[in-house]
Amino acid sequence: MSLVCLMDFQAQARERLSKSSWDFIDGGADESITRDDNIAALRKIRLRPRYLRNVSEVDTRTTIQGEEISAPICISPTAFHCITWPDGEMSTARAAQAANICYITSTYSSCALEDIVATAPRGLRWFQLYVQSDWELNKQLIQRVESLGFKALVITVDAPVIGKRRQDIRNQLDLQKNLMLKDLQSPTERNSAPCVQLDPISSSFCWNKLSWLQSITRLPIILKGILTKEDAELAVKHNVQGIIVSNHGGRQLDEVLASIDALPEVVAAVNGKFEVYLDGGIRTGNDVLKALALGAKCIFLGRPILWGLACKGERGVQEVLNILKSEFHTSMSLAGCRSVSEINRDLIQFSRL
Amino acid sequence: MSLVCLMDFQAQARERLSKSSWDFIDGGADESITRDDNIAALRKIRLRPRYLRNVSEVDTRTTIQGEEISAPICISPTAFHCITWPDGEMSTARAAQAANICYITSTYSSCALEDIVATAPRGLRWFQLYVQSDWELNKQLIQRVESLGFKALVITVDAPVIGKRRQDIRNQLDLQKNLMLKDLQSPTERNSAPCVQLDPISSSFCWNKLSWLQSITRLPIILKGILTKEDAELAVKHNVQGIIVSNHGGRQLDEVLASIDALPEVVAAVNGKFEVYLDGGIRTGNDVLKALALGAKCIFLGRPILWGLACKGERGVQEVLNILKSEFHTSMSLAGCRSVSEINRDLIQFSRL
Amino acid sequence: MSLVCLMDFQAQARERLSKSSWDFIDGGADESITRDDNIAALRKIRLRPRYLRNVSEVDTRTTIQGEEISAPICISPTAFHCITWPDGEMSTARAAQAANICYITSTYSSCALEDIVATAPRGLRWFQLYVQSDWELNKQLIQRVESLGFKALVITVDAPVIGKRRQDIRNQLDLQKNLMLKDLQSPTERNSAPCVQLDPISSSFCWNKLSWLQSITRLPIILKGILTKEDAELAVKHNVQGIIVSNHGGRQLDEVLASIDALPEVVAAVNGKFEVYLDGGIRTGNDVLKALALGAKCIFLGRPILWGLACKGERGVQEVLNILKSEFHTSMSLAGCRSVSEINRDLIQFSRL
Amino acid sequence: MSLVCLMDFQAQARERLSKSSWDFIDGGADESITRDDNIAALRKIRLRPRYLRNVSEVDTRTTIQGEEISAPICISPTAFHCITWPDGEMSTARAAQAANICYITSTYSSCALEDIVATAPRGLRWFQLYVQSDWELNKQLIQRVESLGFKALVITVDAPVIGKRRQDIRNQLDLQKNLMLKDLQSPTERNSAPCVQLDPISSSFCWNKLSWLQSITRLPIILKGILTKEDAELAVKHNVQGIIVSNHGGRQLDEVLASIDALPEVVAAVNGKFEVYLDGGIRTGNDVLKALALGAKCIFLGRPILWGLACKGERGVQEVLNILKSEFHTSMSLAGCRSVSEINRDLIQFSRL
Repeated sequence: MSLVCLMDFQAQARERLSKSSWDFIDGGADESITRDDNIAALRKIRLRPRYLRNVSEVDTRTTIQGEEISAPICISPTAFHCITWPDGEMSTARAAQAANICYITSTYSSCALEDIVATAPRGLRWFQLYVQSDWELNKQLIQRVESLGFKALVITVDAPVIGKRRQDIRNQLDLQKNLMLKDLQSPTERNSAPCVQLDPISSSFCWNKLSWLQSITRLPIILKGILTKEDAELAVKHNVQGIIVSNHGGRQLDEVLASIDALPEVVAAVNGKFEVYLDGGIRTGNDVLKALALGAKCIFLGRPILWGLACKGERGVQEVLNILKSEFHTSMSLAGCRSVSEINRDLIQFSRL
Repeated sequence: MSLVCLMDFQAQARERLSKSSWDFIDGGADESITRDDNIAALRKIRLRPRYLRNVSEVDTRTTIQGEEISAPICISPTAFHCITWPDGEMSTARAAQAANICYITSTYSSCALEDIVATAPRGLRWFQLYVQSDWELNKQLIQRVESLGFKALVITVDAPVIGKRRQDIRNQLDLQKNLMLKDLQSPTERNSAPCVQLDPISSSFCWNKLSWLQSITRLPIILKGILTKEDAELAVKHNVQGIIVSNHGGRQLDEVLASIDALPEVVAAVNGKFEVYLDGGIRTGNDVLKALALGAKCIFLGRPILWGLACKGERGVQEVLNILKSEFHTSMSLAGCRSVSEINRDLIQFSRL
Repeated sequence: MSLVCLMDFQAQARERLSKSSWDFIDGGADESITRDDNIAALRKIRLRPRYLRNVSEVDTRTTIQGEEISAPICISPTAFHCITWPDGEMSTARAAQAANICYITSTYSSCALEDIVATAPRGLRWFQLYVQSDWELNKQLIQRVESLGFKALVITVDAPVIGKRRQDIRNQLDLQKNLMLKDLQSPTERNSAPCVQLDPISSSFCWNKLSWLQSITRLPIILKGILTKEDAELAVKHNVQGIIVSNHGGRQLDEVLASIDALPEVVAAVNGKFEVYLDGGIRTGNDVLKALALGAKCIFLGRPILWGLACKGERGVQEVLNILKSEFHTSMSLAGCRSVSEINRDLIQFSRL
Repeated sequence: MSLVCLMDFQAQARERLSKSSWDFIDGGADESITRDDNIAALRKIRLRPRYLRNVSEVDTRTTIQGEEISAPICISPTAFHCITWPDGEMSTARAAQAANICYITSTYSSCALEDIVATAPRGLRWFQLYVQSDWELNKQLIQRVESLGFKALVITVDAPVIGKRRQDIRNQLDLQKNLMLKDLQSPTERNSAPCVQLDPISSSFCWNKLSWLQSITRLPIILKGILTKEDAELAVKHNVQGIIVSNHGGRQLDEVLASIDALPEVVAAVNGKFEVYLDGGIRTGNDVLKALALGAKCIFLGRPILWGLACKGERGVQEVLNILKSEFHTSMSLAGCRSVSEINRDLIQFSRL
């Protein structure tokens, strides 16, 4: 089958992966309501296109945290890329570098950070941090990612405990047994070493401790997982540099709002103090357009990157990114937007939301 | 199949029970609209989680009518537990005692009340009363349950006549022939004795006669089945001690509101004068969280307890209760609630209701 | 299969009838949107039951046009009962008389009016008139039904032309060839005689000509098919005695409002000047309760009567009427209504409509 | 199978055409949300019929741009009719002439304009122009269509680039290889000649360049594809003579509003300055009625014409037009409209939209 859209990669990835690997990637928490709602909520939004504008030159470029990217389409952190492709995150990193977009590398990378950086040295990278219970480990990790040239620290806030993913329990998934979490080891031991715990995330991390993190790093701090205006206002108050509106792909608390439905409230609360991004459910160029029209500066892809990896490794990730970029270019042209700065709320049919 | 969530118990119970037993447990009245709506209405509600709170210690304990329970997850009265497991209510009672939650024992228990109490003497128990046409019998029953240590009287108000359950009619279900309703016999005759009538419920019981009940017992009186603010206001006026918002699992009048949809109106009308509880459609930890966020002090489980019994007897009920408690703990953690007192309406996305 | 509810009769009738007969009865116009919406709109309405009322005696009796009926459940006019049962309308008439409810006999009866009256002389009957292009024929018909003791004239207003029923066209249904429309013949010729035309309905009949009808009869005139407040106001102005809110079972103009959705607007416009009735989609006792709560004085059954006939003739109609009456009795009991006069709009959850 | 309604032609056309031809006709852009929503949005609208009017004579005639047509049912431009029937647009033109309605001939006709005109010389025809990048070619085309007697110029505005139709990509559809686009050739070369490019549409055409077009033609200019009040206001400002509210059958930007949902906003913005038409999703006579009730002067058919062609050529197009005209006549009769001027917004149930 030809791979024409992101869902084609999904179908092929499902065929290529073992059931338990597929389930691990695909699964949502509990009833998977929010995972599915991420898609459905985007589908319900109607666009208001403008015509008879000169769209012979459409420019998809934008910036995030001051860095230029080729399109507002970047890579969200996801765990264990080696499940889907032998050299895992290294393929992802090369594809991201080629596409000139940002790749948020996960705490739960199956490749060592040093190897990821070495394979794609010019790529724009942020580091996603699951704050660890061991504070010394947090400090070491942050110093490592700073020295490796990561440009921002993405703190995941929606996983103080792990969501209940029924399929993983049924499959008796035991990632520790099969995977080396090299990022959580010190560089010296990362070539030998037993696995560290999969779930050492701190459930006591809170707003007060955020300032400690801020005191030990010069990197901008971006909170991933904020869904309410109340938390957005606290983020403003605590001087972070960005928010990724996200529900962890529906893998943590089920039945929270779809990302796109939470976005307007967060954007309004942040009120331009810093950039707001979104992940969750982006599958087409129209989805990117909608997210930007509702105030996101950029969107991040989770599962589709893993589908690309599973199908063709680095080349698959490239294709996924290129398809989406091309679709977004078409969506901009057909909506009458010549640059991302022309994308605004007038594109959205609000009375039908 | 591993039993990971309450719906797994449902699937397995359906396999284990005869068709007519399953139908009796599963059926709703008429078109089963309300039975299904109890679930669907909960699924539609979206949560607004709060993050970056220290959730290293989450406490699910609460109280009902002044008694501490380990979680706001208790057992609703359902009839004839012996249909699903040999020693029926005795297994239920032991599991409830082990979980440290409240078990509302039904008028239509297939085990004698004395036996239920004897097998789990330290458990918190309330007694559900179908007010009988024979007033002397009501009085005897109430005195019996008082002396047996039941802590409250739950009066079912939504069954002045029996709802039309089509499957039971098709199956020519005749429970009288097969079951001994020992609770409706006097203690002296409960080891011999012919069956009493299954349907001696008084259809003339009304607000005026409630004061007579109140005059003959010192137990708190809780009305089960109230769905409107008008009736809630009358309950306040008549000095009852609690309401269980319930539609009898959709088995009485079909097409009434889902329990969760009726809850806010009743909570507002009661205005804190007494505790309001809910049963109907609770299947996940999120459901418990939603019910509490909308004002319920505690929820009660009906069918899931019977599924647990049907699958594994006492151990099955324990597992059902433990799964739901564990899910509720996770839901609280992921929503940022450290104690049940922190659960409030801000968790609910009202504009999407 | 046991026949427990009206849908059971539907399923069995479908098996018993030929495809073209079933299609003729079952079909709606065009896409059958309104036919299906009649059912769906009723299903969406939620009830607000009241409890702790003495419902030991529930009385379903009411009156229409001053005549007592045993329940607000009567028989709408439908064509050609002989399609479904040998002696057609004669069976229907006997069942209606036995049930003590009103039977609106159709212009398109397959039995002669004199025979229908003779077989059930004490039954309450109204006559449904398709106003004919031949005015003399209208006059003769009206004088005949008056002398036969029909108590009202029901003028169908929604069929100036025949709706497009695709299945009938596909089936090349040709009722003229197979049926004798005896009502449109004079009594003297009705035992010999070729068929009259099936479609001689006047498409020019209008408000102005209604006064001519009123001038030649002493019978109350009831308009069947009104769906808007504008037409309801004209009906008040033209001094009719009743309206049946109806969309002809979805067989005429498709995509009009479901009957139950049109009812409140018509009831408000009529403002008590005369009685308003409803047909369309009534299948359960709850449906009857809802229609009355929204202002109908009585409901009429169309297809379910034909299902009863097709299954068991007279006895089938009796069972259909008895089942619905019994369900309505249960619905009243469970909603806390002791008489039809206690059924009112407070039973309906308006905010969920 | 008898062909009773337009969907019957759809089903038969699907059987008769090759998969890639069917996909080309049937496909929408991306997820085909808007293609399907065009139908669904019409289905959701409810009608408010008026009765007891004399509908013995119903007149479906109307005018567009001052020319009388037999009904407000005309033919939208679609590409390459030879895909579906040997002599393609020539059959379409003869059927349109016979029906006395307007046929908008596409820039992408597979027959030469001269041949189309010659085969049906008395037909009312407009010409649809994809503005070409080559301005001289535009001028030549316009002069040609003027001299051939086309009565208006329909400028498609929603295709500055081509929408992404996944099936066509999967099918590796290459229309250039198979079809001669004779309209884009000069008359002298159109009997020899290599194919011109399929996609030479100007993506730089904009409001400012519209005045250039207006300066070189005396034909009324109609914009096809406007969906917003902002663009409608610009159209008024730029003195065009009409708008066709259209989303290109859902083939360009996906997830825009259904045509019928966009219509009221455009009609309100135009405020009677010129005529507004609609295409997209019209399948039944009721659909025509709804579009006119919401302000369209006339509707245009796209795919159904191709279905007619595919089934039976000229005769199939005639049948499609006759069926829809007949249904519209019935819809008018049953709604109480004796002429198209009586069709207005009171027919629409707004509170249910």
